Amino acid sequence: MSWTTPKKAIMLAASAEGGTKLNAFDNALLKMGIGNVNLVKLSSVIPSHIEWIEKVPEIPIGMLLPTVYAHIESDEPGTTISAALGVGISEGNQGGLIYEYSGYCTKEEATEMVKRMVEEGFRIRGWKLKEFKVAAAEITVKNKPAAAVAAVVMFPY
Amino acid sequence: MSWTTPKKAIMLAASAEGGTKLNAFDNALLKMGIGNVNLVKLSSVIPSHIEWIEKVPEIPIGMLLPTVYAHIESDEPGTTISAALGVGISEGNQGGLIYEYSGYCTKEEATEMVKRMVEEGFRIRGWKLKEFKVAAAEITVKNKPAAAVAAVVMFPY
Amino acid sequence: MSWTTPKKAIMLAASAEGGTKLNAFDNALLKMGIGNVNLVKLSSVIPSHIEWIEKVPEIPIGMLLPTVYAHIESDEPGTTISAALGVGISEGNQGGLIYEYSGYCTKEEATEMVKRMVEEGFRIRGWKLKEFKVAAAEITVKNKPAAAVAAVVMFPY
Repeated sequence: MSWTTPKKAIMLAASAEGGTKLNAFDNALLKMGIGNVNLVKLSSVIPSHIEWIEKVPEIPIGMLLPTVYAHIESDEPGTTISAALGVGISEGNQGGLIYEYSGYCTKEEATEMVKRMVEEGFRIRGWKLKEFKVAAAEITVKNKPAAAVAAVVMFPY
Repeated sequence: MSWTTPKKAIMLAASAEGGTKLNAFDNALLKMGIGNVNLVKLSSVIPSHIEWIEKVPEIPIGMLLPTVYAHIESDEPGTTISAALGVGISEGNQGGLIYEYSGYCTKEEATEMVKRMVEEGFRIRGWKLKEFKVAAAEITVKNKPAAAVAAVVMFPY
Repeated sequence: MSWTTPKKAIMLAASAEGGTKLNAFDNALLKMGIGNVNLVKLSSVIPSHIEWIEKVPEIPIGMLLPTVYAHIESDEPGTTISAALGVGISEGNQGGLIYEYSGYCTKEEATEMVKRMVEEGFRIRGWKLKEFKVAAAEITVKNKPAAAVAAVVMFPY
């Protein structure tokens, strides 16, 4: 993290089980390829002209990475939990917005929630929505704690 | 954000309605002039010799800014919610402290809470309180989700 | 904080009372020697080849320091609260993991929880656990709000 502005970003989502809620969260991060870095939680704006990448780059263990994330954990068997991030990109890639939602619902319901939030965020700023993207994960709890996580991780170079 | 120490800061507060609680929070940030940056949440200490500014400077979309903030959202009609940050500045501007409070109360009650916290923080450090400042916002929920937000945003230059 | 990777770290824990929950938290940070800096909360991975230090270095007031922390506050007389961070160091100091727990329990119970989490985190990564360390604090609430805090603070140099 820096006083500067991120250059690249990636959207990721996964769900996982674990021996505790925190381990389930950790296991979901590992599936997403970001289990060995330090996430610094951000509020939710995408810099201008960001480049979206498809694959987590090689990152030193313990590097600090600014990240917008939504997560939910549960250990109640039978419960379905979901986390979603909705990303709206503006015309000309001048900037974008990220909204998060997590709750006791399906992935589709969480996606619908973040879509509605993105649309309102664009409307109120007078920005034109060129593209809507979503990262969402869902899991139904069985006999172990489980987590659903969605993240937009940002990179400085 | 950097391994260094912020140079300038600004106090801001606003309340707003929105289609969801998160949009209400976002709309309050927009009113404060910080809706298009990424806030990195801090605990609550003001560097020595900080310069307090009155107007949010031009900031690139998506820049990372270290920010102390208090916020509360509600969608229960008739409820009054408030968020406040109390800032205590020491003699000689050697440093300062920020305490946050948010709750189901008026702006005056939230202000009273943070004032008490600032006084205790100074007393326990043996610092002399030269000036107390507050940023507070209040809103009574009508038929839409609403948010009250108070923030101290810090700048590197 | 920086886009780089921390070089040193310290483990700290303390409990304290205060006039409010936030002041109790603040007073615990003061006991730990980090009451006058800005903590930036991290998720929980230790960089390779980190050097563990024993004493908080001289830090400018208000400096931003990336920190993993667990904390709990209570104002219910008779309640015992604890916060713990468990740190697992890998063979060859290639990296490590930090897990947090806080709750209405003793320091020993909190320590047991984070130990279990560390073991699972190492097992799932196929890493070999060379050393387990813990920072934990406990307090039983009397007639004032109280806090228990455990932290791993990281330094850039």
